[in-house]
Amino acid sequence: MTSILVSGGIIVTLDRNRRVIKDGAVLIQDDRIEYVGEAGTLRRPPGVEFDIDASGMIVLPGLIDTHIHLAQALIRGCADDTSLIDWLRKYVWPLQGNFDTDDGKASAELCMLEMIKSGTTTFLESLLHSRYGFDGIAQSLQSAGMRGILSKTVMGLPGYGNEASIMHPGMIEDPQTCLREVDSYFKRWNDQANGRIKVWYGARSLGGCTPELYKQIAEGANRLATGVTMHLSEVRDDVQYTQKQFGKMPAEFMDEVGLVGPNIVFAHGVWLTEKEWQILANKRASVAHCPSSNMKLASGIAKLPEMMKNGVNVALGCDGGPSNNCYDMIREMKTASLLQKVRLLDPLVMNAETVLETATLNGAKALGLERDIGSIEVGKKADLILVSLRQPHLVPTLNPVSDLVYAAEGPDVRTVIIDGKIIMEDRVVKTLEEERIIQEADRRATNLLKRAGLDVVTKWTAS
Amino acid sequence: MTSILVSGGIIVTLDRNRRVIKDGAVLIQDDRIEYVGEAGTLRRPPGVEFDIDASGMIVLPGLIDTHIHLAQALIRGCADDTSLIDWLRKYVWPLQGNFDTDDGKASAELCMLEMIKSGTTTFLESLLHSRYGFDGIAQSLQSAGMRGILSKTVMGLPGYGNEASIMHPGMIEDPQTCLREVDSYFKRWNDQANGRIKVWYGARSLGGCTPELYKQIAEGANRLATGVTMHLSEVRDDVQYTQKQFGKMPAEFMDEVGLVGPNIVFAHGVWLTEKEWQILANKRASVAHCPSSNMKLASGIAKLPEMMKNGVNVALGCDGGPSNNCYDMIREMKTASLLQKVRLLDPLVMNAETVLETATLNGAKALGLERDIGSIEVGKKADLILVSLRQPHLVPTLNPVSDLVYAAEGPDVRTVIIDGKIIMEDRVVKTLEEERIIQEADRRATNLLKRAGLDVVTKWTAS
Repeated sequence: MTSILVSGGIIVTLDRNRRVIKDGAVLIQDDRIEYVGEAGTLRRPPGVEFDIDASGMIVLPGLIDTHIHLAQALIRGCADDTSLIDWLRKYVWPLQGNFDTDDGKASAELCMLEMIKSGTTTFLESLLHSRYGFDGIAQSLQSAGMRGILSKTVMGLPGYGNEASIMHPGMIEDPQTCLREVDSYFKRWNDQANGRIKVWYGARSLGGCTPELYKQIAEGANRLATGVTMHLSEVRDDVQYTQKQFGKMPAEFMDEVGLVGPNIVFAHGVWLTEKEWQILANKRASVAHCPSSNMKLASGIAKLPEMMKNGVNVALGCDGGPSNNCYDMIREMKTASLLQKVRLLDPLVMNAETVLETATLNGAKALGLERDIGSIEVGKKADLILVSLRQPHLVPTLNPVSDLVYAAEGPDVRTVIIDGKIIMEDRVVKTLEEERIIQEADRRATNLLKRAGLDVVTKWTAS
Repeated sequence: MTSILVSGGIIVTLDRNRRVIKDGAVLIQDDRIEYVGEAGTLRRPPGVEFDIDASGMIVLPGLIDTHIHLAQALIRGCADDTSLIDWLRKYVWPLQGNFDTDDGKASAELCMLEMIKSGTTTFLESLLHSRYGFDGIAQSLQSAGMRGILSKTVMGLPGYGNEASIMHPGMIEDPQTCLREVDSYFKRWNDQANGRIKVWYGARSLGGCTPELYKQIAEGANRLATGVTMHLSEVRDDVQYTQKQFGKMPAEFMDEVGLVGPNIVFAHGVWLTEKEWQILANKRASVAHCPSSNMKLASGIAKLPEMMKNGVNVALGCDGGPSNNCYDMIREMKTASLLQKVRLLDPLVMNAETVLETATLNGAKALGLERDIGSIEVGKKADLILVSLRQPHLVPTLNPVSDLVYAAEGPDVRTVIIDGKIIMEDRVVKTLEEERIIQEADRRATNLLKRAGLDVVTKWTAS
């Protein structure tokens, strides 16, 4: 039995009353929160094994990243300042089409290391290709101690824009094999590691599956009582495709094939319309908003406040190594807020509190985990992070939520607790070997580039 | 005589050939760079006093922040998610109108500490009010070891929007006293500290000075051969004001009063038009672009690529504690790039290399310091920073410039050299007492809030 007492910090609970407790304490028994409140009113229980001093820190629920690509950490910086189609054809597909399972594992570990070090405790991986090695990645997730959903790619070919002919051959998978693999991975991994691991369907974006295949995914998800994630309306072409092909908007089409529901997370949703927001809201599907990626790839700006006003649950995501290029939810929160303010020329929209909800509570809801995570409340899982305020860029502390959203950054996270276990303490990750992972990632990325016949350097002369 | 040898890193020189040297060395004699090139071809000279191992790091010119408010670090987070007029009237002015000179010094030191720790070596302070204590701040700048331009506010009243009646009384200054003070501060401080300190005019934005007063500022700047900085076309109201009042666009008006020239830096420039870009370009005035501030205050998006295509020199700025809310040029670079890409729906614009130029070379040019700083070149001042790549979010190193702009953040800066002196080594700032400054800032901010009768907490219930 593990018992941890965190005391002395400012606790941003995100509970129903959105309490902010200035001198607070959190008591953890095993994997659950047993007490949260003022430090002064807690009678210290016997048997506390770990005391964590949170003075000068904010204590908040672990951040939830609802859209990432684990296998893209290893190709960070491979393709910047380029068009989306070149980005895919010339760099991302050829590199990922050359992955072996050790590359997949190395990339996933690098990515998890980065997420832990910037305060993410739960993630939704959106598209795991077989060649990345599902089992190896699931093992890494288990030992890293994070909470994560691994979505196995399901794809059919060809799709719109004649993707089949331009996709790297190493990226092509057989639809029925994909479906069978979800079943088998689900059996092997779902709810393992004290429930930390889940297995979902990762449906390829519009044009990547036939309507029949989408229906099979929907049936499979119902049968297994699991979730589905998919890129939707990331680019304007998505809209043109479904309109031309099916006479419908993307979300209408997804609804028709049975893939709009409370167990569905759509990544991006940049070009969704009011009519589609209402479909999503009515059927309680979620959107994973990825502002940095949408900006860097010039996809467009999702209409967050309007979408949320229409009742859509909006969570946040960092996307990937070549599209963001980092997996830091703290930085993503600021970007999410600032982008909407300037889009609407209204400084009041997407305030710090709202954006923090997208990164915690809304994320939990999107993943169907709202009873367990997303806030610091008695009975919930003990997933929480400590952010140090004793830094020049976080002083003075006039408004801790503002500091967190507008001034903090990944490295301010000092300590991370997931499922009642101390995963990082004072920036030392206990579950992953940082130096080995960094070295291996560097080595593997270099080899990968060679295998893909690519050479990535800056546009400037390198000697 | 100090001699420093930095060796082993990837040197991003920003020199004429934009060389990126993979295993490079920089030799520093006193305050100047004596060698930059491959480590292998340098014969180690005798008398090297300090050896700095830069392996696993990027070595680049110190970043140049061309628009900041030193006195706003102390009020970081005081006013978020609020309209610009409330932001000024309810928070910024009442707080700054209650500053005493010790508050000014404490805020400046906090700000400089933050800048050094995130790789900024040179800054342009835009509006120093007398009540912040010019001499105290100049002394702090001298001892902090940074390179900085301190602009003394020059203001006349009333201005547009009847500013006089809504401005906090503590913020009002007499125009002629302001002008005399510039003279006296210039005599006392300009070119002091081995040339690290400069004194400029900080003209209040449109409506804050009469045309005659702007002309007096222009005359003064010519007489002293110094510079002027001013907020221009930050908000759309600026355009309406000069059009209604003078039948001109803001930059046309400024040109008429003699304030467009190579020694002028206009902050923001969000609403400048093509005609105005050409005026600025022809007369070689610069724009300090502040993307985070423009987004957070919902001012709008400056048209950077178009402005630059028209020949305007565009540099970068972080603005202030309640508008950004941090002084981290590395984060600002990413924001600057991503914002233009999504505005134009073109991922090719504002590439990593271009944005790094805005933060270095263009900044140097804006400040009239291009012969001394902005690149790592023989004969230039030794202002350079070392950024560690041995971090999960900067691995693998496929493209060091991309890593710097899209994935790095302030705390990745390990070592800072300014004017040939090691100012920060392995994150320890040698010239400023970090813990004392943090404590004092916290204490003073709390007192300031009390004096101003304000209470800033999160919108959520605090107990």
